[in-house]
Amino acid sequence: MRNFEYCNKTKIIFGKDTEDQIGRETSIYGKRVLLHHSGGSAVRSGLIDRVKNSLKDSNIEWIELTGVQPNPRLSLVKEGVNMVKNEKLEMILAVGGGSVIDSSKAIAVGAVNDGDIWDFFERKISPEKALPTGVILTIPAAGSESSTSCVITNEEGPYKRGMHSLFNRPVFSILNPELTYSLPAYQTACGITDMLAHIMERYFTIDQDVELTDELCEGTMRTIINNARKIFSGGEKDYAPRAEIMWAGAIAHNGLLDTGRLGDWASHALDHELSALFDIAHGAGLAIIFPAWMKYNISVNPHRFERFAKKVWGVNSAQEGISQMEDFFKLIGMPVRFSDANIDPAQIPEMAKRVVHFGQIGNYRKLDEKDAEAIYRLAAE
Amino acid sequence: MRNFEYCNKTKIIFGKDTEDQIGRETSIYGKRVLLHHSGGSAVRSGLIDRVKNSLKDSNIEWIELTGVQPNPRLSLVKEGVNMVKNEKLEMILAVGGGSVIDSSKAIAVGAVNDGDIWDFFERKISPEKALPTGVILTIPAAGSESSTSCVITNEEGPYKRGMHSLFNRPVFSILNPELTYSLPAYQTACGITDMLAHIMERYFTIDQDVELTDELCEGTMRTIINNARKIFSGGEKDYAPRAEIMWAGAIAHNGLLDTGRLGDWASHALDHELSALFDIAHGAGLAIIFPAWMKYNISVNPHRFERFAKKVWGVNSAQEGISQMEDFFKLIGMPVRFSDANIDPAQIPEMAKRVVHFGQIGNYRKLDEKDAEAIYRLAAE
Repeated sequence: MRNFEYCNKTKIIFGKDTEDQIGRETSIYGKRVLLHHSGGSAVRSGLIDRVKNSLKDSNIEWIELTGVQPNPRLSLVKEGVNMVKNEKLEMILAVGGGSVIDSSKAIAVGAVNDGDIWDFFERKISPEKALPTGVILTIPAAGSESSTSCVITNEEGPYKRGMHSLFNRPVFSILNPELTYSLPAYQTACGITDMLAHIMERYFTIDQDVELTDELCEGTMRTIINNARKIFSGGEKDYAPRAEIMWAGAIAHNGLLDTGRLGDWASHALDHELSALFDIAHGAGLAIIFPAWMKYNISVNPHRFERFAKKVWGVNSAQEGISQMEDFFKLIGMPVRFSDANIDPAQIPEMAKRVVHFGQIGNYRKLDEKDAEAIYRLAAE
Repeated sequence: MRNFEYCNKTKIIFGKDTEDQIGRETSIYGKRVLLHHSGGSAVRSGLIDRVKNSLKDSNIEWIELTGVQPNPRLSLVKEGVNMVKNEKLEMILAVGGGSVIDSSKAIAVGAVNDGDIWDFFERKISPEKALPTGVILTIPAAGSESSTSCVITNEEGPYKRGMHSLFNRPVFSILNPELTYSLPAYQTACGITDMLAHIMERYFTIDQDVELTDELCEGTMRTIINNARKIFSGGEKDYAPRAEIMWAGAIAHNGLLDTGRLGDWASHALDHELSALFDIAHGAGLAIIFPAWMKYNISVNPHRFERFAKKVWGVNSAQEGISQMEDFFKLIGMPVRFSDANIDPAQIPEMAKRVVHFGQIGNYRKLDEKDAEAIYRLAAE
C-alpha cells in the first residue's frame, strides 16, 4: 500500500427537500453570492425559484450568471471571474451538474488568485486559495460535488483540460435524489457511465493490491450497475435507486476509492480529446473509450481483469467481463463505438497527438501517441 | 434511505514514517501543546522521543501529561483541563490508542466550554467548541482517530459514558502501520473485534436497505476478517495486513458506514456496563456481548442475519453465521462467554439496571432492562 493523505471537507447534505437548506448553509460563508446555473431545466422545474426564496429568507443577495453548457467554456468562466471581482462577491453557488460545478470552481479560483485562469489548466501555476463554492446537484455523474477536480474547455483550440487542487472541494453539497427524476434518460445514462468510469480508473492499477480499496470499489460498482438496471426498467421515479446512484456518484470520485495506490486516468484523457473535438457528452465518450482501452491493455495484468469480470459482472473470464460491460452500456443507451456517435475516424491522428500534450498518459500502462492511436482505432472498429 | 449529513474533516496521513510529520502538521494550529500519552509502550519504543524531535524542529513547545489507562479516567481528564487552562495551551496531541485519544478529546472540550466536564457525558450540556486535537495512532481499534465519539469512565460509580459531537473529530491523524507490529496479540485482537463491532452496530438496522452502505460494510468486514487471519497466522510484522487493518479501523467508525440509516448500538451500551464494572478491555467485552445479542435478536429480521452469514462469513444460515463469528473470535484469542473472562454473573441485575440509565437501548430492537438481563444471561451460559 502506498503512503497517502486523505481529507474531504465537503459537507454532504443528502435527502428529500434538502435544497431548502441552501440559504442557511450559505449564510455561514457570505452575504453576497454568485448564483451560477445553466438557465435551462433548473429554471423550468422551479428549482431556481426555490433557491432564491431560501437565499432571501437568509438575507443573502445574489447576482446570477447563466448559460453554462456541457463541457463548460473558458469564456463564461472569465465572465464570472470579472463579475465576482467587480461586485465583490464572497461565494459561488452552483445549481446543476458537473459542468455548472466545474465552471463555478474555476471562477472561485480565478477570482482570488493572480495570473491568467487558463494557466492553472495548463499546469503553469497552482491555486493558493479559492472562494468557497456551494452546490445543489441536479445530475449525478461527474462527482464534482465533493471532488478536487475541475475540467474546462478552452474554445480557442478547442482544448479540454483539468485542474486538480484541494481548494476545488466545495464547502457543502446538497444532494436530493428527487431532483433527478426528471432527467432525460440519456443524461442519466451518461452520468452512470461517468461514475463507473471514475471507479474503473482507480481500479485498474499495477500497484500491489489494496484489498480494502478493491472491496470498496467493487461494492460501489455493483451498486451502480444494479440500481441503473432498476432505473432503466421503469424505476426512473423510484426514490431508492435514484438515491443509491446519487450517493454512489459522490463516493466514486471523492478520493476514498484510490487510497493507497495510483489510479490510471488514461481513458479520461483519451475522452477529453474526443469530447473537445466532437462535443460529445463526457459519459458517452467514456462508454466508447473504456472497452477499447481494456482490450488494448488486458495482457498487462490479466488477473486484475479476471477479478473485475468475476466480482463486478459475475462472469469468469476477463473477455466476458468486457462484453458484459459493453452490453450494460448498450442497455442504458450509450454508444460503444465511434460509429454509434458519428465520430469521424479521420481525426484519430490529431487526437492521438493532442492527448500526449503533457507526455505519456496512464499509470496502469504508460501510453504514448502510438498507443493512443491504436486505442482510438479499436474504438472505431 | 434516510436523509443524512456527512462531513469528516480529519486529515488522514497514512503510511511508513509518517509520524515524523507531526511537527509540521501541529504548527498549523499552535505553538504550545499538551502532549498526552500513556507513558508506557510509546516511550519504550522511542516513539515519544521521535515526536519530541519533530516538535522541536518546528519550534513547538509542549507540556506532557502521561498515565492514561484503558477505559480512560475522568480524574486524569480534569487534570489535563487544568493544565491546558493554566498553561494557555493551544492544542492537544494524542499519541496512543483509543483511550489516549478519547482522553485528549475530553480535555479539548473541557478546556474551552463552560460547565463541569462530566455533564457533557451525562448529556446535560453539549460542547459548542473544542481545541484542535491531533493524533498519532498506535492501536487500530476504536476508530477514535477520525470519529465523533469520546468515551470516558467516571471512577465515582464507576460509570462509562460516551459524548458524541462533531467537535470531537481530530484535525489530523497520523497512521503508520509499522507502529502496530509490536502490539501484544491480545491488544491486536481486541482492536479487530472493536472495529468489526463498529460495523456490525451499523449493519444491523431495521431501516429499509441501503444497498451501497451494505456493500461498503460487508467489504470492510471481509477485509478485516481476512487480514486478521493473516496477522494471526504469522503475519504480525507484515506491512500489508497491518495496513489493511489500520485503514479499515478508521473507515469502520468515521461515519461513512451508516449513511442513510440508523445503527443499533445496544451491544456497545451492554459492554460499557461490563467493562465499567469488571475493567475488561472494550474489544473483549464486545466479543462476549455480540454473539448473545445476535442470538436474542435473530428473529426480528432473519433476512439481515442470513445476508450477514452469506456475505461476510460465506455460509448459508443465520445460525451458522453467528457460529463462524464466535469461532473467529476464539481463533484470535477473544473470550466469548462470561466464564472465559472471569465475569461474575451475580452482577447481571445491576448491569441490566444501569444500562437503561437513559431509557431503552438499541434501534434494531428497542431493549429494556428485562431484555438486557436476558442478553447478559445468554452471554453467561
